[in-house]
Amino acid sequence: MEDHVSVTFEPEGKTVADSSHTLLELAQSANISLRGECGGAGVCGKCKVQIIKIVGSLSEPTEKEREHLKEDEIAEGYRLGCQTKVLSGRCTVYIPPGSRTGKRVISGIGLDEEVPLEPVVTKVHLSLTRPTFADTRPDRERLEDALGEDAGMSLGILADLPATLRNADWEVTVVRWKNQIIAVEPGDTTKDTFGIAVDIGSSKVICHLVSLVTGETLARTHTENPQIMYGEDVVSRITYASKSPENLLKLQELVINTINSLIEMACNESGISPDTIYEMTFVGNSVMHHLFLGVSPKYIGVAPFVPVVGAMVSFPAKDLGILMNCEGMVTAIPLIEGYIGSDAVANLIITKIGQKNGVSLTIDIGTNSEILLGNRDKILACSAPSGPSFEGAHITSGMKAVPGAIESVDIEGEILRYTVIGDALPKGICGSGVIDLVAELFLAGVITKTGKFRDLNHPRIIVDGVPKFVIAWKDESATRSDITITEKDINEFLLAKGSLKTGWTILSETYGIDPSQIDTIYLAGSFGTHVDIENAITLSIIPDIDRKNILFAGETAVGGAKMALKSISEREKLRQLLAKIEYIELSVEPSFNREYLASIPISRT
Amino acid sequence: MEDHVSVTFEPEGKTVADSSHTLLELAQSANISLRGECGGAGVCGKCKVQIIKIVGSLSEPTEKEREHLKEDEIAEGYRLGCQTKVLSGRCTVYIPPGSRTGKRVISGIGLDEEVPLEPVVTKVHLSLTRPTFADTRPDRERLEDALGEDAGMSLGILADLPATLRNADWEVTVVRWKNQIIAVEPGDTTKDTFGIAVDIGSSKVICHLVSLVTGETLARTHTENPQIMYGEDVVSRITYASKSPENLLKLQELVINTINSLIEMACNESGISPDTIYEMTFVGNSVMHHLFLGVSPKYIGVAPFVPVVGAMVSFPAKDLGILMNCEGMVTAIPLIEGYIGSDAVANLIITKIGQKNGVSLTIDIGTNSEILLGNRDKILACSAPSGPSFEGAHITSGMKAVPGAIESVDIEGEILRYTVIGDALPKGICGSGVIDLVAELFLAGVITKTGKFRDLNHPRIIVDGVPKFVIAWKDESATRSDITITEKDINEFLLAKGSLKTGWTILSETYGIDPSQIDTIYLAGSFGTHVDIENAITLSIIPDIDRKNILFAGETAVGGAKMALKSISEREKLRQLLAKIEYIELSVEPSFNREYLASIPISRT
Repeated sequence: MEDHVSVTFEPEGKTVADSSHTLLELAQSANISLRGECGGAGVCGKCKVQIIKIVGSLSEPTEKEREHLKEDEIAEGYRLGCQTKVLSGRCTVYIPPGSRTGKRVISGIGLDEEVPLEPVVTKVHLSLTRPTFADTRPDRERLEDALGEDAGMSLGILADLPATLRNADWEVTVVRWKNQIIAVEPGDTTKDTFGIAVDIGSSKVICHLVSLVTGETLARTHTENPQIMYGEDVVSRITYASKSPENLLKLQELVINTINSLIEMACNESGISPDTIYEMTFVGNSVMHHLFLGVSPKYIGVAPFVPVVGAMVSFPAKDLGILMNCEGMVTAIPLIEGYIGSDAVANLIITKIGQKNGVSLTIDIGTNSEILLGNRDKILACSAPSGPSFEGAHITSGMKAVPGAIESVDIEGEILRYTVIGDALPKGICGSGVIDLVAELFLAGVITKTGKFRDLNHPRIIVDGVPKFVIAWKDESATRSDITITEKDINEFLLAKGSLKTGWTILSETYGIDPSQIDTIYLAGSFGTHVDIENAITLSIIPDIDRKNILFAGETAVGGAKMALKSISEREKLRQLLAKIEYIELSVEPSFNREYLASIPISRT
Repeated sequence: MEDHVSVTFEPEGKTVADSSHTLLELAQSANISLRGECGGAGVCGKCKVQIIKIVGSLSEPTEKEREHLKEDEIAEGYRLGCQTKVLSGRCTVYIPPGSRTGKRVISGIGLDEEVPLEPVVTKVHLSLTRPTFADTRPDRERLEDALGEDAGMSLGILADLPATLRNADWEVTVVRWKNQIIAVEPGDTTKDTFGIAVDIGSSKVICHLVSLVTGETLARTHTENPQIMYGEDVVSRITYASKSPENLLKLQELVINTINSLIEMACNESGISPDTIYEMTFVGNSVMHHLFLGVSPKYIGVAPFVPVVGAMVSFPAKDLGILMNCEGMVTAIPLIEGYIGSDAVANLIITKIGQKNGVSLTIDIGTNSEILLGNRDKILACSAPSGPSFEGAHITSGMKAVPGAIESVDIEGEILRYTVIGDALPKGICGSGVIDLVAELFLAGVITKTGKFRDLNHPRIIVDGVPKFVIAWKDESATRSDITITEKDINEFLLAKGSLKTGWTILSETYGIDPSQIDTIYLAGSFGTHVDIENAITLSIIPDIDRKNILFAGETAVGGAKMALKSISEREKLRQLLAKIEYIELSVEPSFNREYLASIPISRT
């Protein structure tokens, strides 16, 4: 048994209690600003904190900490937040300004939102009176009377009922989903009530196992979405699934099997039985959502891009073959539109922009970037067709944000510096690196507003067929080839970032405000957390507002699913929230072409 | 195309319209008294009627009519009701007093109760607007909006929805069961809405196919219940089913296959597709009810005899494997108690005793006889363990009421007359024959009040081991053996009829009335329709009240299921009715032993 643990973060003065997470994870869960650009891998060294008080014990400094911290720093209590756990007792942690920046992550992968527990699944332990000649009520009605309300049950539960009641000596626990009885279990099992929140991403599937009694997240598992073999982007998966019912079924099976293996891992890790998982909530973009349900995404792919279902719907887990209680239920977090999925809705749940007076903007950058703008009165939503360049595709040396990718670039005069994910030799450049590169190239006068090289005699520009700017020379790259960017690449990128600016400009116009009047900007999704704010503003990827009001929402998707899993009130709020959302189809807006053309060049002077 | 037909019965002056039923069937459907002891087989000749006006055409007199009617009778317009159909035009039929008797059948097999159509299954034809960029509502929400209310649907319907809507060019018919969408069909299919009412009797299964648009019964099919091979009575089937889950499943499969073949026959006969049958309602005694649902009847068989479920419950047809629309629903008419099944409830639906001011008594005689007493305020119910003698079992020459059974006996001095079902040579004696025989033997002074032979020298008494009264000598029997009754047989019968008297006596006492104050008696079930009222009163099988208030309810079971199928209001009334019913367990009543001992001897002086 572990001791009671409490950690207070200063200067916020917020206290959290947990010994199983790192200080970085705890800070993120409490919405406290702490940098963590490498995602907690111990690579970037930016989550440096100072332990100012400890009554209890800490984990020993790791090798990674010793790499980043000097001996006297360690002596003064400096640690890396991503490496340090408070094992017991009370601890006060100071986060120095250098570890803060404008990046205030309000939620990260696997971190819990605090919400009063009010799950849809409820258990009641009942001691039934035995039948006598004076009381010959049928078994089912006896149970219903003890429950105090009408409750339907399946034929399967009904058929098992006489044996269940008598074997349990009339002491049973009734499990309900809404007012439907989904299980009758012998004895008192009220403590064994679990749920699963799943984020079905197009590249990654994340699964959190949650106790619906304590609210605690017991296990977090994730893996790659194996549908990737049928296309990295959603459009290829729509195409594949639309070809035949068998293809659709194949994609559905792939994701269901993946979820089941994640559930199995989570159950093994926490020592619970899948039979005690009674509800699963899930988020995903519209295509992932449809493929999981076995519903064709064909018409999401063709104008006017309509999904088959958008509302919050629930289906029996057995109809989907999910590894959980056989009478359990699976609930879909609603979609907004064909290209604005329930991951965007999860974003709204976490950022709470629909509960605020000030107008907020959220941007989740991807092949189709979801942009939402609004407040408690109204929320406008659009999907900007930003293309794959933010994900490193369609760029000569582009790659995903995985180890070996150049993720940030800094140009000072003649000197170009970059950082690489995993501190390895570079193999290519990912989206956040391209943003930095293009902004820095422009600020350094290497390229024009429209992305043309000003001087082909620049020492880093080589002309090999077409002119190329060399980011890393072949002798410093892992591939032994130059890592470069061409004018065509830059143009591709400018088209992409132009589409984002067009999105938030049209939303602001429609809302009737100037973008500078936006109170808060949330950068959502894993991509958002790697973006350099200043460069993003230079390129008009986001509007130019007070930096301290630009926040990183992190990967909100699974968190949103989890809030809906834990609370029926949150679901109700969600329903109200959705009623406030108005979708703007950019491509049919009269101002679209004008805005788009104006948005492509770099506008910073 | 057949002409419009109308038949008016005099002296009632009631008019009914139908060319597909015989005059006997039409009279029964309109609750008009017309004898039909042979069940409409053309054998008894008691349904003689006179055609007093015809503008149109009648069926030609059959051979059976020519056997029973003299030439001049036919010339005067006399016909047999069971043989005659009005083929076209208007006809007025007079029912002479001799064709009436005290037997007023209020409902018979296959006859429809008039009830305003208000089925639970409803269809709506919708013309949906097509999606545009200005209206990108998802398919499901588009349908729901057009429907004007929330409606759930299964994953299967959802998955088919995009193709269904587009293939049907957005013109569809939505089928709902309560507020659940159970089908979305291309085009306008509102006219193709059917339901099935099933009576699962322990010996016979009856199935009626009903249009839920016109209310018409399109086909009536019936067959033997093949569970008979596992025991004729419910107790043996409980025993068999309780031995193993496989046995229970076997009995369930037998009845489901039987129902499916009856549905198939009904569909073929009326040219409709099983896919257009959306609901099935069924009645049956508690054991038949449980076996059909695959729910163990074990605890109905042991004290205190509790069923697993009694309320009106509905389950998806696919969970039972019923041949109907795959999303259709199966609804159980509620049970009252372990030994008072939904067939008794159907009886209440048809007799409407729960809507009347006067107190009515209904008796359905069988191995366990269901007795109900009450009015609009309260209904008492009990089950009298009357044993199998009313069904011809446990009696030396006893047999079921099938061709060859002596069904009525009349003794005048030395002369004994009997009638045989099917006008054949006798093989044995059935329940109604035993009632007549015992009453007549008592009235003729052959037996004492306690059923002992007064004079062993009676010409019809032979002593062959034990004394036996000969009903039919071997030279007049089909078996070439004497058909006889022994004192032991008579005693067995007196115990059975004593149990019935005990039932209605205790119910009357509990209700606080004298049995003579009962307003109306309904004899239910097929057995009831064959009983001679006078003899039944002589033996105290029923209380001695004004003969004109003793009615034959006939086989009410399928009719009750059909009323519930046609009308949601009838189901609601049923729910209210059930709340008024109080069950009396006879065996634990303090007065039971005293009453029972007093009820065994014949009490008529």
